[in-house]
Amino acid sequence: MKKFYNPTRSEWSEILKRPTQTVEDIEETVNQVFAEVKAKGNDAVSKYTELFDGINLEETRVSKEEVSSAEFQISEDLKQAINLAKTNIEKFHSAQKTERIEVETTNGVKCWQEKRPIQKVGLYIPGGSAPLFSTILMLAAPANIAGCKEIVLCTPPDREGNVHPAILYTAALCGVTKIFKIGGIQAIAAMTFGTENVPKVYKIFGPGNQFVTVAKQLATRHNVAIDMPAGPSELLVFADDTANAAFVASDLLSQAEHGTDSQVILVSNSKELIENVEAEVENQLNDLPRKSIAEKAIAHSRLIYTEDKNDALELINEYGPEHFIICAEDETFYTEGIQNAGSVFIGNYTPESAGDYASGTNHTLPTNGYAKQYSGVNLDSFMKSMTFQKISENGIREIGPAIKLMAEAEGLQAHKNAVSLRLKELRTK
Amino acid sequence: MKKFYNPTRSEWSEILKRPTQTVEDIEETVNQVFAEVKAKGNDAVSKYTELFDGINLEETRVSKEEVSSAEFQISEDLKQAINLAKTNIEKFHSAQKTERIEVETTNGVKCWQEKRPIQKVGLYIPGGSAPLFSTILMLAAPANIAGCKEIVLCTPPDREGNVHPAILYTAALCGVTKIFKIGGIQAIAAMTFGTENVPKVYKIFGPGNQFVTVAKQLATRHNVAIDMPAGPSELLVFADDTANAAFVASDLLSQAEHGTDSQVILVSNSKELIENVEAEVENQLNDLPRKSIAEKAIAHSRLIYTEDKNDALELINEYGPEHFIICAEDETFYTEGIQNAGSVFIGNYTPESAGDYASGTNHTLPTNGYAKQYSGVNLDSFMKSMTFQKISENGIREIGPAIKLMAEAEGLQAHKNAVSLRLKELRTK
Repeated sequence: MKKFYNPTRSEWSEILKRPTQTVEDIEETVNQVFAEVKAKGNDAVSKYTELFDGINLEETRVSKEEVSSAEFQISEDLKQAINLAKTNIEKFHSAQKTERIEVETTNGVKCWQEKRPIQKVGLYIPGGSAPLFSTILMLAAPANIAGCKEIVLCTPPDREGNVHPAILYTAALCGVTKIFKIGGIQAIAAMTFGTENVPKVYKIFGPGNQFVTVAKQLATRHNVAIDMPAGPSELLVFADDTANAAFVASDLLSQAEHGTDSQVILVSNSKELIENVEAEVENQLNDLPRKSIAEKAIAHSRLIYTEDKNDALELINEYGPEHFIICAEDETFYTEGIQNAGSVFIGNYTPESAGDYASGTNHTLPTNGYAKQYSGVNLDSFMKSMTFQKISENGIREIGPAIKLMAEAEGLQAHKNAVSLRLKELRTK
Repeated sequence: MKKFYNPTRSEWSEILKRPTQTVEDIEETVNQVFAEVKAKGNDAVSKYTELFDGINLEETRVSKEEVSSAEFQISEDLKQAINLAKTNIEKFHSAQKTERIEVETTNGVKCWQEKRPIQKVGLYIPGGSAPLFSTILMLAAPANIAGCKEIVLCTPPDREGNVHPAILYTAALCGVTKIFKIGGIQAIAAMTFGTENVPKVYKIFGPGNQFVTVAKQLATRHNVAIDMPAGPSELLVFADDTANAAFVASDLLSQAEHGTDSQVILVSNSKELIENVEAEVENQLNDLPRKSIAEKAIAHSRLIYTEDKNDALELINEYGPEHFIICAEDETFYTEGIQNAGSVFIGNYTPESAGDYASGTNHTLPTNGYAKQYSGVNLDSFMKSMTFQKISENGIREIGPAIKLMAEAEGLQAHKNAVSLRLKELRTK
């Protein structure tokens, strides 16, 4: 682990550098799959499922029988855990519902804002070694609360053509309307263009590898929105002497096990804590099944000592971490001062993994510095706000003259006419 | 104007087709300008300002003197109109402020959501024939209410190196912090990478030509967010026999004068109204200074007769218009049923130009069908929501076991450890 003591501002950008991903070489593949899925629909999807997932599927849509038998393939304990998490996520996201906002800006000029659900959304859930059913909770539960009519889920089949029962169970539980055994680029393409059986959706959510990331980017050029740009997961901890070094180490490691490119940073005003955390990381690392991954992420992690708390805060805001843990006596200074972070975890008993699963907050968060301008997924991610206005005869009398002047000054005579005609008619009344 | 009577569902997609824009040939130019601005900063900006705007500027930043003298170069009437519009826009956007949302999802598990301003935003205001000061009102006023610290504005200089005084006046009025005489691709590149004097921003807003549109798309690959994808402006009117044909025609024309690629659609259940509107359009068109533009847009506009109101509503939702005017006796059917629209204008005295300038709603809206998944610009566009959680000893006791089970099932042992360690320590207490 690299240590830095009171780094000067000019060194920050180097210290806080994230690994850059090159995507140029992937783009060609993605473009090709998109073109084929657009032109040939299901046939192209099948071709790439065979090529990338090694299985030839007659039917990509998961059947009702598969869904209902999934329930019996996972333990009661896990089901209860999933239900607890779902309840908390639903409580927190339901509370995010907003009322219609109405203002009479001028007498007779009523304006209001309302949020309405995005009618069709697509969720991508990666396959691979672990079934990420927790991400289904994070995406399908709010989509359901928002009122999205069609909630499509794509996830790659395994070599036997199956999907993990925990994924099927959670999807059904959260109101997913259609599940497809389609992975990778072809899944994103299928939801972008629609095929004979996969509906075209308006917005695609969910994590994935580099291919999926580039495919989601490309989808945005075909009238589809995406949740947010993706990057490696990251955690920044600010901890002082009141923190528990073993806890901090366990949080750093839980981030590090995500991938070799995971970002892990500890900022502290205590040299002792830094030393203790470093020792604890070494200690805990050895017992991890994903040690080889975590080890690599830890190798390029950073331990930053900063004496001055204003410097520490500024450095953290400059980085804009996806996950930000605060274990400090003066926690309010950091909670109030943090401007750029995805989700914030406060105190010794708030591990980052609580937010990953069950506290109720969403775990789909902006990485790669995007916390500076993007929200994490929340209820509004599944809705769009629309505005309405209704102007009375009196209202247009009040604001009409200003509209005419402004339209004239912008050289838009027809805009002016639309008001002039109405005012003229009102004069005859 | 093309007329369609009770078109069948299978014909909708052809009738509602938007003009497709090809951007491939522009991309190379945009890539080149971006690479140069990134590498050479101001020098590259100057080079392209000379090339595209035909002026060699010593200083691109607008001086305090230029700003303060702008006030004396526009009429009192226009200033008052701008102030009225600003007041309404501020009232409507201030009302969109949201409080912190806090939920104790489980005993001892406190979660909350807070919105914080995007620290640095960039606004692009096109030059050309008309000074679009109204767009500054729509972008800078909410940015200021949101609390964005740095509000940068770029707009191209004219051949004499000046910026229209209405732009400078409005920018200063709305709290823009820095104004630069930089246009087109080089402006977007400068705000994306930052130069010696232009700050790097986190999110770029504002309209522009095809070059600007492609540049904004490219900016999203360099850690910058944008307000929304752009497309030609569009209006759909639903009108029945209670509508005033002259008013409807004036609204269609106010949309048509924006550009030859503007989209104008009238849907009606009255053949008589359709005929009357068509005649009124012909009539009013002749007096317009921008006749040649409006004429071309009107030529490919559509008049659609639909007998059944459910069909009409479905067709409108399928199109997802940027602007949607409702002049109908049963207006509630449409206001309640509309799912996809940017902004909705209700009744005979609510011309679309009211929303363009002074009703208080925002005129930066999703076009090109993006109303299906994007909000128009609103206060939240200048903020991001962050989540916080604080878990007590008791709280982690409550949800800890569920987290452990789920982490285990996802194969993430370090995530489980972070909880196990804490629970273990609590057992010794």
